[in-house]
Amino acid sequence: MDPDAVAKAFVEHYYSTFDANRAGLANLYQEGSMLTFEGQKIMGSQNIVAKLTSLPFQQCQHAITTVDCQPSGPAGGMLVFVSGNLQLAGEQHALKFSQMFHLMPTPQGSFYVLNDIFRLNYA
Amino acid sequence: MDPDAVAKAFVEHYYSTFDANRAGLANLYQEGSMLTFEGQKIMGSQNIVAKLTSLPFQQCQHAITTVDCQPSGPAGGMLVFVSGNLQLAGEQHALKFSQMFHLMPTPQGSFYVLNDIFRLNYA
Repeated sequence: MDPDAVAKAFVEHYYSTFDANRAGLANLYQEGSMLTFEGQKIMGSQNIVAKLTSLPFQQCQHAITTVDCQPSGPAGGMLVFVSGNLQLAGEQHALKFSQMFHLMPTPQGSFYVLNDIFRLNYA
Repeated sequence: MDPDAVAKAFVEHYYSTFDANRAGLANLYQEGSMLTFEGQKIMGSQNIVAKLTSLPFQQCQHAITTVDCQPSGPAGGMLVFVSGNLQLAGEQHALKFSQMFHLMPTPQGSFYVLNDIFRLNYA
């Protein structure tokens, strides 16, 4: 398994799900997951998805600029660091963002998001 | 111990050391540490500090915009996510950057950097 390929596949899956069907992200989080969104901390899959689906925009499109990946330690986790642009419907300019994910392996051989930190990078 | 206070203290210590005496960062990394700097992966304290001290600028000053922090799992680690501006001597405009650190506890009750990912956020 090539970690960089896994990270890239995760990132593509995450943002295409976000842009097409935000509620579908629930499968990627678990009860112990934590999201920090623009400084606000949210715990647990249900609360995280409630936050993401209640953001004050409907249509959006993420375009990824960079994806970096490192193993996070002996537990088999993976750190994924993303930068990119977020285009909201009806807005002229895209917003720059940075986001990091800490992915942990599931018994089924997949990964879930244990940690998620999102920040807009204001110009 | 307040994790946010620990993260903030680490970040202040890290960047003030970076700006005053880059070689002094060696104490914050260990042999198993990994840095990804603008996509380049570097392993181990010695190689990481060799990279940081050989960057093509001498004087610089980091100004922190945001610091986010989450526990990374049962091993007592901490994820720290930073955004800010990097001013290089002689340059008119500061560079925006994002950086994440995965801190792990040491037996002495301190933390070292296991993972470090740095990216400039080009406008």
